[in-house]
Amino acid sequence: MNRKMVIYKTGQIILLESMLLLLPMFVSVYYRESCTVPFLLAAAAALVIGGLCVVLTHPKNRVIYAKEGFIITTLSWIALSAIGALPFYFSGEIPSYVDAFFETVSGFTTTGASILPDVEILSRGLLFWRSFTHWIGGMGVLVLMMAILPPSEGDSGRSIHIMRAEMPGPVVGKLVPRVKETAKILYMIYIFMTLLQIVLMIIGGMPVFDSVLHTFGTAGTGGFGIKSDSMAGYNPYLQWVITVFMLLFGINFNLYYLLLIRNIRSAVRSTELWCYLGIVSAATAIITCNILPAYSSFGESLRHAAFQVASIMTTTGYATTDFDLWPQLSKGILFLLMIIGACAGSTGGGMKVSRIVILARSARQNLARMLHPRSVRVVHFEGKPVERTTLESLSTYVTLYFFMIFLGFLILCLEPFDFETNLSAIVSCFNNIGPGFGAVGPVRSYAEYSDMAKLTLSAAMLLGRLEIIPILIAVSPSTWLKK
Amino acid sequence: MNRKMVIYKTGQIILLESMLLLLPMFVSVYYRESCTVPFLLAAAAALVIGGLCVVLTHPKNRVIYAKEGFIITTLSWIALSAIGALPFYFSGEIPSYVDAFFETVSGFTTTGASILPDVEILSRGLLFWRSFTHWIGGMGVLVLMMAILPPSEGDSGRSIHIMRAEMPGPVVGKLVPRVKETAKILYMIYIFMTLLQIVLMIIGGMPVFDSVLHTFGTAGTGGFGIKSDSMAGYNPYLQWVITVFMLLFGINFNLYYLLLIRNIRSAVRSTELWCYLGIVSAATAIITCNILPAYSSFGESLRHAAFQVASIMTTTGYATTDFDLWPQLSKGILFLLMIIGACAGSTGGGMKVSRIVILARSARQNLARMLHPRSVRVVHFEGKPVERTTLESLSTYVTLYFFMIFLGFLILCLEPFDFETNLSAIVSCFNNIGPGFGAVGPVRSYAEYSDMAKLTLSAAMLLGRLEIIPILIAVSPSTWLKK
Repeated sequence: MNRKMVIYKTGQIILLESMLLLLPMFVSVYYRESCTVPFLLAAAAALVIGGLCVVLTHPKNRVIYAKEGFIITTLSWIALSAIGALPFYFSGEIPSYVDAFFETVSGFTTTGASILPDVEILSRGLLFWRSFTHWIGGMGVLVLMMAILPPSEGDSGRSIHIMRAEMPGPVVGKLVPRVKETAKILYMIYIFMTLLQIVLMIIGGMPVFDSVLHTFGTAGTGGFGIKSDSMAGYNPYLQWVITVFMLLFGINFNLYYLLLIRNIRSAVRSTELWCYLGIVSAATAIITCNILPAYSSFGESLRHAAFQVASIMTTTGYATTDFDLWPQLSKGILFLLMIIGACAGSTGGGMKVSRIVILARSARQNLARMLHPRSVRVVHFEGKPVERTTLESLSTYVTLYFFMIFLGFLILCLEPFDFETNLSAIVSCFNNIGPGFGAVGPVRSYAEYSDMAKLTLSAAMLLGRLEIIPILIAVSPSTWLKK
Repeated sequence: MNRKMVIYKTGQIILLESMLLLLPMFVSVYYRESCTVPFLLAAAAALVIGGLCVVLTHPKNRVIYAKEGFIITTLSWIALSAIGALPFYFSGEIPSYVDAFFETVSGFTTTGASILPDVEILSRGLLFWRSFTHWIGGMGVLVLMMAILPPSEGDSGRSIHIMRAEMPGPVVGKLVPRVKETAKILYMIYIFMTLLQIVLMIIGGMPVFDSVLHTFGTAGTGGFGIKSDSMAGYNPYLQWVITVFMLLFGINFNLYYLLLIRNIRSAVRSTELWCYLGIVSAATAIITCNILPAYSSFGESLRHAAFQVASIMTTTGYATTDFDLWPQLSKGILFLLMIIGACAGSTGGGMKVSRIVILARSARQNLARMLHPRSVRVVHFEGKPVERTTLESLSTYVTLYFFMIFLGFLILCLEPFDFETNLSAIVSCFNNIGPGFGAVGPVRSYAEYSDMAKLTLSAAMLLGRLEIIPILIAVSPSTWLKK
């Protein structure tokens, strides 16, 4: 293994974070808040640690393989969270470091689960940082680094291994032959959509600061808000804008690229897109009818249903109403949407619609094969045959997915909460959603869990965001021992 | 498709049931109960229906393939349950036919979920029939037919397709080259162990009638009892005997055959056996400590913990205490044991230990392959390489397993019960356990569910017992339409 390169790349990421930390610092300065110094200290810490990593290694051999890609990604995400938690901790606004770490992991992984019972007491600089982590984590910080750094010599094409480890979904392709260009294009689309949403929110009468932060939360499908009642206090226009943008950010960004290069036919033919929209529509329709008695009009039911379905399915986690009080059927549907998740290649989490589609098709093929053992059948997806190794990885992912959720659930069972709370907490964190049901419902927080549970849930958020396999490989002893 | 042969074989099974119905009838006669006539009527109905099926078809072409095996198994199990429900219904002791059907499906599938709030008011003949269905369903009624009927001409070896469809587990092998002999050996072992348990129970002071019925429930890993408090009222010796026998009936019967032919080394080397015993021991140890404060001594905690772990893991469903009142950790462990289930080739349900082991190994191999793409690795189980088609079927099974559970859960969400009740009800029925948590806990019943929910749960029990795929193929339109 190329250890030097692993440390070098992780160091670069930490250096990048020290830059990113300056942005919320300027916000603090602008609002004349006391948390300017904590940001400066955190940025300095990142500068020193990252600088040491980069300067002390300076690897000559720049070749990396899949293994290094997995390890760099895992280490970077842990380091980012550990350092990103410092401003919360230094400022004293989140007195426990474990809480601050949980909050930062929740930010970067775009989960949006919070340990703050009252978010409104946080200073504006910290609120900005908290939402900004969503925006960075949504598209991926390593992808960001690829987009802005010049490709290092001897690196040609190798960074695809990092991109694969960080980008969600069963298959990660390059839009254009060069990885750096792909990363750039993705971020351009991301920035454009972010700006568009901010403008539409300001037009709707939301203050600029609120608009920016809520857009960060929407774009990364994160879900951190700045109000205790999440989105309930905003007008219907703003709620609809957020609904639409949550759905847009939950779509595979490759499709936007196809639109950009005017290959509209390919974009519209996407199976995943239609399945995604189909599930959203069906779930919204059923929930609208199911919750009708609780609201004054059909329009209001539809608005709450569509918002919550978009929010949970894209794994954002905003709420316009306390959906924990909804009937069991609606809650059951939301629970299943948590697991399905958004499209691959989007900023959303969960299992991803494409995985579900490929699993279903593969199951159908296998059933057919049992009847006609000699027939040769291949699973197709988006017009292409799915490779056998992809199917095997997928099956491994599903096995590990349920295994991890069950393991996390068992650890949470040590806490004094009921079955529904614990199961929805682990499912919500693992799929990077945020709120669950019961004691972790949309108007509650994760504050009452013990430190051990918070660390378990932090691990679940990271495992969910990086889709399990990179982290498992990074922590497996055989990765580090073998030559 | 060989339709005539499908109807013919199903008819044979129905005829077999008409014989089996005579046994509880004699019990009624012995106890001079009024339910003698209902049994006679049901037996007559079975005789007529089964007779017509057999006489009217009389197929010349006796060749069947996997497809016919799946359909025969599915049809037989539905027919058995529909006719087996008649005595309950005719006698008026279960006034609703849906309830009677639910109870009979629960019996044959060895689930043990009951709609009877008070089982003690049932007459002895019906109690006998109820427990006897467990015993028949445990080893499989089609396997029973193979064991007792002379093999029909032209049938040579074909009945393996039926056996495969009915026997649980990822791989079904013949113990000896001839299917009929295999079926006979399995039933001989089954009968011997049943008799042994009956004797041990009588020695422990249980009345003969109770001993026989409880042994039927244990042998089939079913769980129907004859007391409202299940096993709580019996002495510790009897509870320990049942614990041990539940565990014994949860072991792959192939191992007993290996012991019989004195191939002790192979039996002791079984990976599945050691994993099964390991899980049982670990779960018992943790639960014993966890529930210690609720009981007067360590011995009592251990007894309740071991009994409940054995009962849930083997999917029997007996209870010595109301485990719904246990702490969340213990309930969480029991919930996961529900999904794992017993060993393949046993009378128990669930996903089966061997499937979990193969899934875990396959995941490990795939992780290794991601690091070293050019390495060739094969998953081994019980000393043999696992075929690729087996792995694909397994992955299909897992996909369908969770899909079916989620679908059933959604339907149950229409009922006025909480999250824990609904989720544990569908998981419990699908894995053929019986009790769940909350409103379907060990001291409650399924009586309060609506007819639609009861039919959904009946379908779940059948899907779980026959391991999904035979039923899916039998109900798929393409099976019936295509030439």
